Amino acid sequence: MFTDKYYMKMALQEAQSALEKEEVPIGCIIVSNDRILAKAHNLTETLNDVTAHAEMQAITSAANYLGGKYLQNCTMYVTLEPCVMCSGALNWSQISKVVIGARDEQRGFINKHLTLHPKTEIILGVMEHECSVIVKEFFKNKR
Amino acid sequence: MFTDKYYMKMALQEAQSALEKEEVPIGCIIVSNDRILAKAHNLTETLNDVTAHAEMQAITSAANYLGGKYLQNCTMYVTLEPCVMCSGALNWSQISKVVIGARDEQRGFINKHLTLHPKTEIILGVMEHECSVIVKEFFKNKR
Repeated sequence: MFTDKYYMKMALQEAQSALEKEEVPIGCIIVSNDRILAKAHNLTETLNDVTAHAEMQAITSAANYLGGKYLQNCTMYVTLEPCVMCSGALNWSQISKVVIGARDEQRGFINKHLTLHPKTEIILGVMEHECSVIVKEFFKNKR
Repeated sequence: MFTDKYYMKMALQEAQSALEKEEVPIGCIIVSNDRILAKAHNLTETLNDVTAHAEMQAITSAANYLGGKYLQNCTMYVTLEPCVMCSGALNWSQISKVVIGARDEQRGFINKHLTLHPKTEIILGVMEHECSVIVKEFFKNKR
């Protein structure tokens, strides 16, 4: 039951919450031992803050929940490939695993030749189509 | 009077505040038209949060002060070269200018071949010695 797809659906629900606020629809959750530690969606417009990406908020929130800054035994499910800022934060957090929905060729960390922490496993392409469509539709409607 | 050195001394005072809390001593300020919009120092240990770098806090704080997320006509003075995370945040902020004290060859964004926003001017080496010594002494005493 608690598959990668199950959790990515929850991250997509977060992206949907962002969409309803006219935010770029990106969502993420952090899970440890099948317990949800954090849920977050992009709030850069609402908070007037470029740092308020879903991943940044979730990292802060999960660390707060755990009472420690390292996210060992934690997995992040995120609908879009993290940007440079968020990949840097994930690197510092030493998170165990990051599961990514859609790639972001332009803004994502992978094409910038950045890596996460050596301890971090990366899985790509879980519900890729759904995660990609929600962002593409958002920008199409913006134009 | 309001020279780069003048403002870097203020950033160094922030680094000193971090040191007094046993935090890695890095400080920064954000200035616009000779008005200080934000002062911050590293608080990753105090807040148990890997994202609580001086630069991240200052970006959020200055945007809050301005009521807008873009830091146009703003200059950041930071004692140590920003890391990947902070360079990503600075890139999103479109800040006008970043003045850096000491280089961070290992963790800094420059050796990762990252760039800030095309609009952002970068100045290196203001009070480099003082900015470098405070961090080196901190890690020497940690060992």
